[in-house]
Amino acid sequence: MKVGIIGATGYGGLELIRLLHNHQEVENIDLFTSSEEGIQFSNKYTHLMNIHDQPLLKIENDKLANYDVIFTSTPSGVSTELLPPLIGAGPKLIDLSGDFRLKDATEYVQWYKKTPAPPEAIAKSVYGLTEWNEEAIQQAQLIANPGCYPTAVLLSVLPLIKENLIDASGLVIDAKSGISGAGNKPNQMTHFSETNENTAIYKIHEHQHIPEIEQAISNFAGKTSPVTFTTHLVPMTRGIISTSYAPVTSGVTEQQLTNALEETYANHPFVRIIKETNKFGTNQVYGSNFCDIHVRLDPRTNRATIVSVIDNLVKGAAGQAIQNMNVQFGLDQMTGLQQVPLFI
Amino acid sequence: MKVGIIGATGYGGLELIRLLHNHQEVENIDLFTSSEEGIQFSNKYTHLMNIHDQPLLKIENDKLANYDVIFTSTPSGVSTELLPPLIGAGPKLIDLSGDFRLKDATEYVQWYKKTPAPPEAIAKSVYGLTEWNEEAIQQAQLIANPGCYPTAVLLSVLPLIKENLIDASGLVIDAKSGISGAGNKPNQMTHFSETNENTAIYKIHEHQHIPEIEQAISNFAGKTSPVTFTTHLVPMTRGIISTSYAPVTSGVTEQQLTNALEETYANHPFVRIIKETNKFGTNQVYGSNFCDIHVRLDPRTNRATIVSVIDNLVKGAAGQAIQNMNVQFGLDQMTGLQQVPLFI
Amino acid sequence: MKVGIIGATGYGGLELIRLLHNHQEVENIDLFTSSEEGIQFSNKYTHLMNIHDQPLLKIENDKLANYDVIFTSTPSGVSTELLPPLIGAGPKLIDLSGDFRLKDATEYVQWYKKTPAPPEAIAKSVYGLTEWNEEAIQQAQLIANPGCYPTAVLLSVLPLIKENLIDASGLVIDAKSGISGAGNKPNQMTHFSETNENTAIYKIHEHQHIPEIEQAISNFAGKTSPVTFTTHLVPMTRGIISTSYAPVTSGVTEQQLTNALEETYANHPFVRIIKETNKFGTNQVYGSNFCDIHVRLDPRTNRATIVSVIDNLVKGAAGQAIQNMNVQFGLDQMTGLQQVPLFI
Amino acid sequence: MKVGIIGATGYGGLELIRLLHNHQEVENIDLFTSSEEGIQFSNKYTHLMNIHDQPLLKIENDKLANYDVIFTSTPSGVSTELLPPLIGAGPKLIDLSGDFRLKDATEYVQWYKKTPAPPEAIAKSVYGLTEWNEEAIQQAQLIANPGCYPTAVLLSVLPLIKENLIDASGLVIDAKSGISGAGNKPNQMTHFSETNENTAIYKIHEHQHIPEIEQAISNFAGKTSPVTFTTHLVPMTRGIISTSYAPVTSGVTEQQLTNALEETYANHPFVRIIKETNKFGTNQVYGSNFCDIHVRLDPRTNRATIVSVIDNLVKGAAGQAIQNMNVQFGLDQMTGLQQVPLFI
Repeated sequence: MKVGIIGATGYGGLELIRLLHNHQEVENIDLFTSSEEGIQFSNKYTHLMNIHDQPLLKIENDKLANYDVIFTSTPSGVSTELLPPLIGAGPKLIDLSGDFRLKDATEYVQWYKKTPAPPEAIAKSVYGLTEWNEEAIQQAQLIANPGCYPTAVLLSVLPLIKENLIDASGLVIDAKSGISGAGNKPNQMTHFSETNENTAIYKIHEHQHIPEIEQAISNFAGKTSPVTFTTHLVPMTRGIISTSYAPVTSGVTEQQLTNALEETYANHPFVRIIKETNKFGTNQVYGSNFCDIHVRLDPRTNRATIVSVIDNLVKGAAGQAIQNMNVQFGLDQMTGLQQVPLFI
Repeated sequence: MKVGIIGATGYGGLELIRLLHNHQEVENIDLFTSSEEGIQFSNKYTHLMNIHDQPLLKIENDKLANYDVIFTSTPSGVSTELLPPLIGAGPKLIDLSGDFRLKDATEYVQWYKKTPAPPEAIAKSVYGLTEWNEEAIQQAQLIANPGCYPTAVLLSVLPLIKENLIDASGLVIDAKSGISGAGNKPNQMTHFSETNENTAIYKIHEHQHIPEIEQAISNFAGKTSPVTFTTHLVPMTRGIISTSYAPVTSGVTEQQLTNALEETYANHPFVRIIKETNKFGTNQVYGSNFCDIHVRLDPRTNRATIVSVIDNLVKGAAGQAIQNMNVQFGLDQMTGLQQVPLFI
Repeated sequence: MKVGIIGATGYGGLELIRLLHNHQEVENIDLFTSSEEGIQFSNKYTHLMNIHDQPLLKIENDKLANYDVIFTSTPSGVSTELLPPLIGAGPKLIDLSGDFRLKDATEYVQWYKKTPAPPEAIAKSVYGLTEWNEEAIQQAQLIANPGCYPTAVLLSVLPLIKENLIDASGLVIDAKSGISGAGNKPNQMTHFSETNENTAIYKIHEHQHIPEIEQAISNFAGKTSPVTFTTHLVPMTRGIISTSYAPVTSGVTEQQLTNALEETYANHPFVRIIKETNKFGTNQVYGSNFCDIHVRLDPRTNRATIVSVIDNLVKGAAGQAIQNMNVQFGLDQMTGLQQVPLFI
Repeated sequence: MKVGIIGATGYGGLELIRLLHNHQEVENIDLFTSSEEGIQFSNKYTHLMNIHDQPLLKIENDKLANYDVIFTSTPSGVSTELLPPLIGAGPKLIDLSGDFRLKDATEYVQWYKKTPAPPEAIAKSVYGLTEWNEEAIQQAQLIANPGCYPTAVLLSVLPLIKENLIDASGLVIDAKSGISGAGNKPNQMTHFSETNENTAIYKIHEHQHIPEIEQAISNFAGKTSPVTFTTHLVPMTRGIISTSYAPVTSGVTEQQLTNALEETYANHPFVRIIKETNKFGTNQVYGSNFCDIHVRLDPRTNRATIVSVIDNLVKGAAGQAIQNMNVQFGLDQMTGLQQVPLFI
């Protein structure tokens, strides 16, 4: 398989390189750039010396058409323009940005403040939440790879909503992310001295992942109601922990909640349901494609607390993208994604 | 003023020393220990060289009775035994542990799994949430200094509950703390390599600060309903951010929420209401006695998101204890507590 | 005393505000800016709400002349132009940049790659390493406040060189700094995700503090020889640890090394000589104006290892600047600088 | 290949599991314990759920003899007793502790304060610095896997000493390590709140890796002189950066230094010589088996600054152990060790 990556200098792109380099079916990885053509990539990123020393290539549609798969890991508004010309052409297309996720273009405009992709392109895109959309992904040319937060949130709450065990209209989601989610562009929000020893809330009620979460709850669990979703930055590089709260349906037990999760993911190797635990944290999936989920019922309030952890750059970005590629090409989902969590 | 500190080797104790050292009305600080008598304190804690070089003293009730104020910063179950003999004697008593906070001894037993203090001692203790209990504190000999989490939570939600602006029965509180809240005893939960690059949830639905929060909501805002409260550890030393969610009463606006907070704290120098902000984090109060609060109404869900930050060792422990001491002695509340936040 | 600060938005400036706010002799602090005139400072830096809410003022020489003291905490090349017009006018001038430190203008050009200050201005500046230059500082209008690294290095090695206990020509200095030393401008070197979980060496043999160290060794200890000096960035915000190595003069004992340090600093309250220790680190001076020093003789190699720690923003910048101000105005050196280290 | 690991609960052991799990030639991994027999390993370490769920096995020599290779990742003084009975039996033995590294038993006693291994066992052990001892490793049953610090130090300085380009008698080595090097036992030195925001020097002139470094310099580069070596703890989990300083031989150029490194490691895939760089740090090898080296000549002092970085748990422990296993079994050195550095 010949793979092209557009946007390799971002953290999603770097993580694609890290994971694809050891993917058994990938024989060639080429990196494309709009502005740094000719630069030897390992001169820019020393950690890739002897691993990826090739120069960056110029983005040209003719060339791109010759790849088996093209990943775009670009800022909002870029793949909107880059990908439509490639629809119907040879390569599978996997977009890690938010440009093809929202089916309703007006929502895209409202939350992203950018021009949406052409309607016919959006219509053809398939939402790449692998565990919930495998059949469609298999048929699709263009995958809209989910956002990091939605991945952590949806995998943990969808089974409980779908089974009517919790009340989606009372759903409150409090998410915390490491700083790498903010990308590789330096700014005051990612400046070490103001980020270290600081946990902060940001974009309150305004995060562009809110409509993505609501759309998926509607599509996969059949419930339409707005959710409360907030995001926090914690002083670490990788990892997301999502803590969701919802009233349980009358009479539902903790065991039923756990069972619903276990049954849903019985045949899905990357989702692990953790039953008893004193401490449940992001380091148990660090560097891997796992999503771990834990649920507890508070008998005093009759609310469920549903927690999940992912590595935002793996299951929340590059790892799930490769998982989707595997599905598109009929490979075992775990191909190239068997990394054991680093933990320490 | 002569001050005695029992439990000086813990982080609450160290922070009392840090702050009291520059308190204008304190002329003498003595440290008491149950096990390390005679040890020169600055040999154990080098950072106090030339600041507190005196040896640790043995705990003896006769000696303690001669101080103007005694702080106990000891593990649960210790001041239960240490303080009752001093009730009615000379010194003001300020207990930083949880031993005298819960008025209902059965709740103490249930959540702390320890023997409660004698009922008459509990009856005499006054809950030291300064901004909400100033008159009682002024009269009290024995102060039960609030827990770190309850301080951050209560200061932010009490005004809104009391004014019937939010529905306390729907209150969900998601709190995140730096690791110093776990104290100075090394264990796997505080081991650097397993705590760094990790955000974790712990003690789900079982934290001993839950009944303390509920008791205060009942006493100060007149509402009795169980709350959902969870706690997370984030990889930083100091700081708590509490994010609370609750349905707002029909018709309530964001402006009304902000107004209620501003009016409540108009004459309270340590509580700051932040109105417009892109990023609201723990570093804006680092090292200081401030509690900053920010509230936003989500028009899509009609829920309020109420956020507050404190330094868990200052406003969440030693700082508030000194603030209470100031009230007990008729001093300006800010005496000795004018530290500017470090921020970086 | 009326104080003006130019460059308040940088970290040196913020730290001046933090420390001066509680300085007993300072009654007024005004902040000056070249570009953000009129902005309310606490809107930009929320942590200063209720502490410094005044708007930023425009830099005008007439106005500046009315202050008792002006601090400049500006990038290289700025105070070069700002300060000369104020020489001979009313205010004492304390420059935290490197612009007036090097007496040899050609060295300034070589290491800073900028236009040097006018020779007559340089001639009038006094190097503000307080413990070594107190008399000159007392007489001076213009203080060149030392760099952060040189402060940590010089305080620890000068006594040993001056007393001929170590061989300056064999001096190797390995310094490590927290990221705040790089200032508040975001760039790839200070970007959280590439700085966290990373210890890096930078500017090898090219750091502009090298000539400053050599000049001071020559002036204060009478030895002229180039030193090897390297700098590392460690993933923390504050703190510098300087580890220096030098052959000891034949026959010299560890006790003599320690004695020389103790005698030199016997009457200097901010320098503490630590004798026995298992672990000697930056957190023991965190947030304070202390410089702690520890020396050990390796009998196997006959080399001394000389270690010192400072808070780079306090003793390495704003704290020492205020210490110099105190000396200039005949105040006790410790006025406003009695902060106890935070340690945790 | 059947692999047994003794001491799997330590960080060296966990890292062996992480890396061996994806090693193509390993079909079975069993974990042995002296005290926790029967415990399901993924209950203790959740991150290994679905990866290593087997129970811990009791250490019994009969059973151990049936493995192809046994790794011991145990505290000092344990493999001293465990391994001698297995010498001459079936399995290859790779010891990650310091018990078999020092050929001179009196040095072991002096630096480790423990009883040394039997002389005949020590005599049979081969020092596993792969790049410098490949032939002996190929023949050996018992490998003494190098310490983390010595690996970083030796790979960078040995070529220059061997080629007489630098003066070993003037060698000063300043090493900095992440906290995971201190292992998984909680204590005050590894307690988050006292380790975070702190860079500290420890064990000055007393680190047990000093004789190991000197022995290797003597054996591989033919120079016997004591070295100055100090160690620092920096607030990160993984990574070592070693900065060494030495006078260069008269007339030697920077180019010659770089050439010597490049020639030495031309055929060694895990050692990368970095030529031009602004910033050289531990994150460029994070999670991988690489050792990156950079050298610069300071023309002002005629000293070389030689820097190297490794991941202390990979090239400094488990990775190099597997590299040695590969050599012992005639496999390509890179088998199972092709992890791309995480960088972020």
